[in-house]
Amino acid sequence: MRYLEDLAVGATFRTGAAMITEQDIIAFAQQFDPQPFHLDSTQAQASVFGALVASGWHTVGVTMRLLVEGDLQLAGGLVGLGIDSIQWPRPVYPGDEISATTEILAIRSSRSRPNFGIVSVRSITYNQRGEEVQIMISNQLVPRRDTGEILADRKGQV
Amino acid sequence: MRYLEDLAVGATFRTGAAMITEQDIIAFAQQFDPQPFHLDSTQAQASVFGALVASGWHTVGVTMRLLVEGDLQLAGGLVGLGIDSIQWPRPVYPGDEISATTEILAIRSSRSRPNFGIVSVRSITYNQRGEEVQIMISNQLVPRRDTGEILADRKGQV
Repeated sequence: MRYLEDLAVGATFRTGAAMITEQDIIAFAQQFDPQPFHLDSTQAQASVFGALVASGWHTVGVTMRLLVEGDLQLAGGLVGLGIDSIQWPRPVYPGDEISATTEILAIRSSRSRPNFGIVSVRSITYNQRGEEVQIMISNQLVPRRDTGEILADRKGQV
Repeated sequence: MRYLEDLAVGATFRTGAAMITEQDIIAFAQQFDPQPFHLDSTQAQASVFGALVASGWHTVGVTMRLLVEGDLQLAGGLVGLGIDSIQWPRPVYPGDEISATTEILAIRSSRSRPNFGIVSVRSITYNQRGEEVQIMISNQLVPRRDTGEILADRKGQV
């Protein structure tokens, strides 16, 4: 488990890989992004994508699971304060296998929460050909080492 | 269906509402964000949130579905080129009912795709008390009116 003091700008972390099947793409879309180019491969041919593609939010979700299970194990978990940007340079297609690398871009103190820092990270998601399918910059809330025990006293203040 | 020419800066659009249950929160977390504060209400009490809360990505997903089904019906669908920012000012708790409003912030031509424009929108998601739970700024690819018929010829170019 990494605390704020364990992190350095420029450090990089890896995740495992996950395959996204056509069935996964359609099931996600039915729940969260019911558009023809995510639901039906025939209708998708007439869309701007020209083929069935995963919802960008599906790529985000699978990337998030990979990050939670990956090398960057933050004390207190991955608590995202917000997202600075997400780009999807190319679609994720059925059968693609994705994985991610995360680099620490900046570390600063939290003004409102002295026991925490805010860590800016860039997570790049790649497909099985090493092509970038998603670039996300997010801000994570990370406790200082001596804060771990008092987390429970700070309920609901995030 | 709205084309680029039908949109104006400052125009706002609404969505319906959706309730997020504890079961929904846990099911989403198991698939995409398996952290204690999204999985187990007892363990969540010891987390920085102090209670079970929805993954921010779950809030994004439900908001996306509301947007797809809402008043802003764009020709060609909601095709997000990228996200400029997402903030989660407060958590979504089990039983919360969320809905969203979208405002058009900017409209510009696409340099690389002359038949399309890029529309910047801010979608604010509210809980049942009218409190903001998510603020997202995204860029949507929107076809010009005379482009609709030739979409099928531009397969895979987005």
